[in-house]
Amino acid sequence: MKKILIFGVGLIGGSIALKIRQKKLFDQIIGVGRSGGTSLTSYVSNGMLDVAIEKASEEIASTDLIIIATPVAQTKKILADIYPFINEKSVITDVGSTKSDVMAASKESLKEKFNQFIGSHPIAGSEKHGASAAKSQLFENKDIIITPHDNSLNSKIDYLRKFWVSLGGRVSNMTPEIHDEIFSTVSHIPHLLAFGLVNLINNKSNKDQLLNFAASGFRDFSRIAASSPEVWRDISLANKKAILNDLKLYQDEISSIIKLIEEENTNDLNQYLIKASTTRSEWIESQK
Amino acid sequence: MKKILIFGVGLIGGSIALKIRQKKLFDQIIGVGRSGGTSLTSYVSNGMLDVAIEKASEEIASTDLIIIATPVAQTKKILADIYPFINEKSVITDVGSTKSDVMAASKESLKEKFNQFIGSHPIAGSEKHGASAAKSQLFENKDIIITPHDNSLNSKIDYLRKFWVSLGGRVSNMTPEIHDEIFSTVSHIPHLLAFGLVNLINNKSNKDQLLNFAASGFRDFSRIAASSPEVWRDISLANKKAILNDLKLYQDEISSIIKLIEEENTNDLNQYLIKASTTRSEWIESQK
Repeated sequence: MKKILIFGVGLIGGSIALKIRQKKLFDQIIGVGRSGGTSLTSYVSNGMLDVAIEKASEEIASTDLIIIATPVAQTKKILADIYPFINEKSVITDVGSTKSDVMAASKESLKEKFNQFIGSHPIAGSEKHGASAAKSQLFENKDIIITPHDNSLNSKIDYLRKFWVSLGGRVSNMTPEIHDEIFSTVSHIPHLLAFGLVNLINNKSNKDQLLNFAASGFRDFSRIAASSPEVWRDISLANKKAILNDLKLYQDEISSIIKLIEEENTNDLNQYLIKASTTRSEWIESQK
Repeated sequence: MKKILIFGVGLIGGSIALKIRQKKLFDQIIGVGRSGGTSLTSYVSNGMLDVAIEKASEEIASTDLIIIATPVAQTKKILADIYPFINEKSVITDVGSTKSDVMAASKESLKEKFNQFIGSHPIAGSEKHGASAAKSQLFENKDIIITPHDNSLNSKIDYLRKFWVSLGGRVSNMTPEIHDEIFSTVSHIPHLLAFGLVNLINNKSNKDQLLNFAASGFRDFSRIAASSPEVWRDISLANKKAILNDLKLYQDEISSIIKLIEEENTNDLNQYLIKASTTRSEWIESQK
């Protein structure tokens, strides 16, 4: 019997369960909630899960795939808790937005079983969260990054890759460090920059007037500033090195813009804006 | 016979013409193009305009409302050109995104007739442009800022306010300086910040890889970086003072974020993000 165990049945965990059910990829889907967290029993009655438990121990040994889809701060403890029960056949992964910290934490928690762990990051976020937002199509044509390490077993890497492909994803391998640098630039700092603009407005004495006249440009730019503060606090600290590097590069960009405007350097300012506008326009075309 | 004359029949000028036609607000709609620019004759045949001319002179005297809807850099010259022909009954306005510079330019060009000029800024932009993007509903429930000056005639202010209301807009009065400060914060700097992020990516050696993994957060944040470089170059220089002030305040925000992350100040970082997230969420609710 093929078994999958999902810790944390939110947007990502729930969407995995729905797709597995639809494609009958496993014989048994077990969800692990936590005492004090949302009860998972309704997910059993509505068919998303076969079994809901609050604490996993003996079930671990007979599980093919273990997915940690809780808030990232819990990953290390969960892995340490299940470590004694893990059988050598199991593949273990997570779904966190940062990878270096998760790889380091899992190495510590899983000890000699670390070769069964490969990090995953499905690029399928949303400002919505919770199992109520889950949908079986969430991973369709979405990038899924997996981050094996030097000791990862090839058979486990293959298994995980095929799993994500069967959910509809496009899988790429990379090191945790490269992953964290890339997502610092294209995801983490845009979020922080959007939070920053909203707080610039918060700090002005005419805040209400400003918000009253904010229109579509502000709306799209700042959408991601409505994201979960807890999630982005954790990501900021977990990916500290790459994010600080990018924030400083970004300050350099703003300094360049300030200089061009101060000097009224019409020609170079024009070139600067054309360069960005061209890249953005070509990018959106390439996404069609 | 009630006549309106529109210089520049693009997104804004064209949308004004369409709405006037629909509501029969004027008896004659005259569009003024320019030699070398897009020919307006097709707009006459499709009914958007009654008359298309390349240069306005005698028509000016008998016109009730003159609207300058060309790129802002042309406003001063157009006003100087038409100055000798302006009759005291005419109301003159523009539609530019910056107001202090337009008010100064029109004061210079219009001399003693400056009391007939009141600046306008319809907050109804789009990254689309040109008359082909024009639509009669463009101003429906949109904010229109008008910027009278100390010598503006009350009768002209009333006339202009009623005109924009008849197009569907919500009209607010403010000084050009206040206008420019507000729109620096909620529109101009978000645009420059989006251009800046795209150029941060442009300057990285793994640019293509970065763009390959950029997803919906980047897409919305950077949408306005696809805007016209010429327009944003001109706005940056026209509203230099307020924009430079805001860009420096923004650098302070980024410095605060850097410090919170460097010091791993979990609590204050959390508070910082909650403050922004709450404001953004409340704002979007208030827009519904």
